[in-house]
Amino acid sequence: MEKTSVSKATLGRLPRYLQYLKELPEEVRHISSTTIAKELSLGEVQVRKDLNAVSGAGKPRVGYITVDLVKRIESFLGFNNLTSAVIVGAGKLGKALYEYDGFQNFGVEIIAAFDTNPDIITDGDSEKKILPMEGFEGFCKNHKIQIGIITVSDEAAQSVCDLMIAGGITAIWNFAPCKLNVPQDIILRQENLALSLAHLNNQLNN
Amino acid sequence: MEKTSVSKATLGRLPRYLQYLKELPEEVRHISSTTIAKELSLGEVQVRKDLNAVSGAGKPRVGYITVDLVKRIESFLGFNNLTSAVIVGAGKLGKALYEYDGFQNFGVEIIAAFDTNPDIITDGDSEKKILPMEGFEGFCKNHKIQIGIITVSDEAAQSVCDLMIAGGITAIWNFAPCKLNVPQDIILRQENLALSLAHLNNQLNN
Repeated sequence: MEKTSVSKATLGRLPRYLQYLKELPEEVRHISSTTIAKELSLGEVQVRKDLNAVSGAGKPRVGYITVDLVKRIESFLGFNNLTSAVIVGAGKLGKALYEYDGFQNFGVEIIAAFDTNPDIITDGDSEKKILPMEGFEGFCKNHKIQIGIITVSDEAAQSVCDLMIAGGITAIWNFAPCKLNVPQDIILRQENLALSLAHLNNQLNN
Repeated sequence: MEKTSVSKATLGRLPRYLQYLKELPEEVRHISSTTIAKELSLGEVQVRKDLNAVSGAGKPRVGYITVDLVKRIESFLGFNNLTSAVIVGAGKLGKALYEYDGFQNFGVEIIAAFDTNPDIITDGDSEKKILPMEGFEGFCKNHKIQIGIITVSDEAAQSVCDLMIAGGITAIWNFAPCKLNVPQDIILRQENLALSLAHLNNQLNN
């Protein structure tokens, strides 16, 4: 089955389905979307649509074969094929993202962080490596990094972005509050936390 | 003029207008949206709409009175009346948000962080206070805190949320990846960074 792009809401529910399915006793060979909806207090139509997008329709009266459904969701989330990511900028935010272990539940593994500050560079053996920028482009190429996360200052963000693209990265998640110029084939996601808070404040005052 | 709710995009451009206007020489008593659009490489219609939402229409042929426009934008962004916020959970993400100084540009000031871990509590004199949870509710009431930022674990998030509401907080920005139950009159904004990354990954693989 072709992988399709699903909504963020669907994507957000997939790990919940997965957890529920994996905790089922082995005897439960088949499972219906109705049961899943009930157990997780979700709407039946919603669950049916979600699972349909990921694994096709269940069989009438029988539902899904449990082990197959688990495999489908895992594969959809990229469990068999983790996408490798790197972070540039190992300040507080960069480190917080780097050490957060929830990303793997969505098929992404951050395998290294980079920084220009020599004081925070780790040695090669540590589990959460912070590497100097010198070897950045080569590292990205060697490890076939697909996702680059930018947590540097405004001023440095564009040049980091250019380096990422030179290293073969095709998707960029930018936390610097500035507009980046990227070629059309690069996927860019701009995260602006200050703006989220501003929006909340604006709602509060109106 | 009544304050109105504006789009996130408009909100994001206001600090740019403000910076530009404040850097103008004093002689520039009047300014048109056309000039601002040109100088900031933005669409004229967009700039006109943005400023109209914040300050009403400029005068034909004359534009806006520069000092008035500055005041209007500042007041819209809450410069004269910073909204006070607190963070609960001074781990890496909490600290990163706490120490980020860009929020004040949008009218929000994080005045304290709270944590249950005694090892990271600061003394009362430090500029960026990390306080124990014991005095939380009273602190919120005394300082009329309106915004609460949750950067604790999933398990602790709901009880922190309840404490915030008990302390009089009316807007909550939640970074814990779980659903919070709040009364209808509370503004809740859910931030799910893992899901943002998952979405990027999903786009990449389709």
